[in-house]
Amino acid sequence: MKAAVWYGKKDVRVENVPEPPAPGPGEVKVKVHWCGICGSDLHEYVAGPIFIPVNEGHPLTGSKAPIILGHEFSGEIVEVGAGVTNVQVGDRVAPDACQVCWDCYFCKRNLYNLCEKLAFTGLMTNGAFAEYVNVPAYTLFKLPDNISSEVGALVEPLAVGLHAVRQAPVIQGDTVVVLGAGTIGLVTLAAVRAAGARKVFVIEMAKARKEFAQKLGATAVFDPQEGDVVAKVREATGGLGADVVIECIGNDKTGPLAVELARKGGKIVVAGIFEKESSMHFNSVVFTEKQVIGSLGYAGEFGPAIDLLSDGRIKAESLITGKISLDDIVEKGFEELINRKEENIKILVSPA
Amino acid sequence: MKAAVWYGKKDVRVENVPEPPAPGPGEVKVKVHWCGICGSDLHEYVAGPIFIPVNEGHPLTGSKAPIILGHEFSGEIVEVGAGVTNVQVGDRVAPDACQVCWDCYFCKRNLYNLCEKLAFTGLMTNGAFAEYVNVPAYTLFKLPDNISSEVGALVEPLAVGLHAVRQAPVIQGDTVVVLGAGTIGLVTLAAVRAAGARKVFVIEMAKARKEFAQKLGATAVFDPQEGDVVAKVREATGGLGADVVIECIGNDKTGPLAVELARKGGKIVVAGIFEKESSMHFNSVVFTEKQVIGSLGYAGEFGPAIDLLSDGRIKAESLITGKISLDDIVEKGFEELINRKEENIKILVSPA
Repeated sequence: MKAAVWYGKKDVRVENVPEPPAPGPGEVKVKVHWCGICGSDLHEYVAGPIFIPVNEGHPLTGSKAPIILGHEFSGEIVEVGAGVTNVQVGDRVAPDACQVCWDCYFCKRNLYNLCEKLAFTGLMTNGAFAEYVNVPAYTLFKLPDNISSEVGALVEPLAVGLHAVRQAPVIQGDTVVVLGAGTIGLVTLAAVRAAGARKVFVIEMAKARKEFAQKLGATAVFDPQEGDVVAKVREATGGLGADVVIECIGNDKTGPLAVELARKGGKIVVAGIFEKESSMHFNSVVFTEKQVIGSLGYAGEFGPAIDLLSDGRIKAESLITGKISLDDIVEKGFEELINRKEENIKILVSPA
Repeated sequence: MKAAVWYGKKDVRVENVPEPPAPGPGEVKVKVHWCGICGSDLHEYVAGPIFIPVNEGHPLTGSKAPIILGHEFSGEIVEVGAGVTNVQVGDRVAPDACQVCWDCYFCKRNLYNLCEKLAFTGLMTNGAFAEYVNVPAYTLFKLPDNISSEVGALVEPLAVGLHAVRQAPVIQGDTVVVLGAGTIGLVTLAAVRAAGARKVFVIEMAKARKEFAQKLGATAVFDPQEGDVVAKVREATGGLGADVVIECIGNDKTGPLAVELARKGGKIVVAGIFEKESSMHFNSVVFTEKQVIGSLGYAGEFGPAIDLLSDGRIKAESLITGKISLDDIVEKGFEELINRKEENIKILVSPA
């Protein structure tokens, strides 16, 4: 079958590889419909290996590079292994990308995103930029008929946004700031609105992304190039700052900025992945009793994400800015996202 | 009357000043029994002004330097103003040091330690290193007969420890690390134990303070000079790290260290006051879903602190390492605490 295989930095090859074997006990084989390109795929392409094991096999899956990328996907079950009862052949599904041990301290408490042996599909075991992929049956969530396979590929990033909202949690009536209007910022914005926030302000510099944020219902979008965003958020919140701030950028300056944007006693959820250390004065937390809360992926948000998409409370289709074939993943996918970062939100890849 | 008046850095004068006037409506006059020297008094002496207003009068109280220091105190009510019904002449009391507006966003939600106009007794209005002090009646908590006036002066710092514990909150069965065994670290240790923690580890370098921590029931005391405290806490917690870490030092290195000592998904309460910025990688919070929570003073913990002292669940008397007269506050108080920092925990001052 055809697959996009990561061999090294700037070395992703679309090539023919053996189809996965018949699924083992508890496994299913999924025929991939659509798989989105995630920022972490791009990071592995540009600057990897970051999460991909290259020397030793992953402790849970035994996998190491070369590895098939892709974890934001939808597909159809074509074969089920022994003992699988939660899904059957023909089901359309969106698979949770967390493959976990179910045995460590964290898994036993269902904090499975913190699993000591977490293996992310498409990074630490073969993924879905391919015609077929085998995954554990416990990762599968059925897609209802009114969610297309394209939107089904957005369930994974939406789960990230829902998780960030639930980490705070954002409660009805809150005033919220979302930093960044890339994919995660935008799905977080949608989730914040669906959570009943009173107002949602988005901090973003790129013109196209500012427009996306406005379309998705931001109360206002503040651009740091056009003035002091802290002053603007203060002014818009009666001088207080926001009840909740959700950081979806991961820049060494935006971490402390997120803390500053919250009101005293407010909550800062940090969902961005950072490349550098930040300078931070802990008094900015002590004197204000603010709370800084990490958010990593998701743990239980696939079900809620599917329901919110299915009943229309969250509309995500407009985030799809490109649909390409697997053959074109490097040029029209990775390179396009690098070169025209601002115009693109989510590019979906079809192996068909 | 006699009082210790702050005029400037290294310029605290014990002098005769007019006794406070008859208390106004809602006010009471307290005859001071004992008043402890707090780290913040010492900071004002060594490096002030920090919190003391010197140019303009404080927005709530109108006070500015010269100002009478002292806020950790017990005393007896000698006169009540019009409309005071919660206390009467003769009551022994421990006064909450927060004088607040009761009108701002935070006061309306009873987060009065975050009041927009917070005036701390003895820093932003005259305090209790004096024979008498006038305070608002709403700050007063009665001391039961089985709490001495000496221990009554410890209610204030104990409230800080209880607040830090409640900010997490520490729940029964938690494994906790307390960083620092100064007054706040030690009262926090006592509060953590009373909260039902499974184990409490203390990080401290000074020999005398390590002994205090052991006496107050620390499971173990780890000294950074004697090896890697992160490794020691991991080893003592089955490889995980602590459920809750409470930072009571305020050093630019101990903030990030506190984050490191917590387990994934754990909570870090930061109660120290910091002099410098820290270097911090936000991924240390994102990848682990840790929560960093600020803790400032107290908001509602005087009542619980008095009950816990009264019924013996917290024993604080051993923290009193000196009792001196107001005349000696500079030499035997401030200078003693500077020169023999490690041997002293709490020095109480009597105006008698």
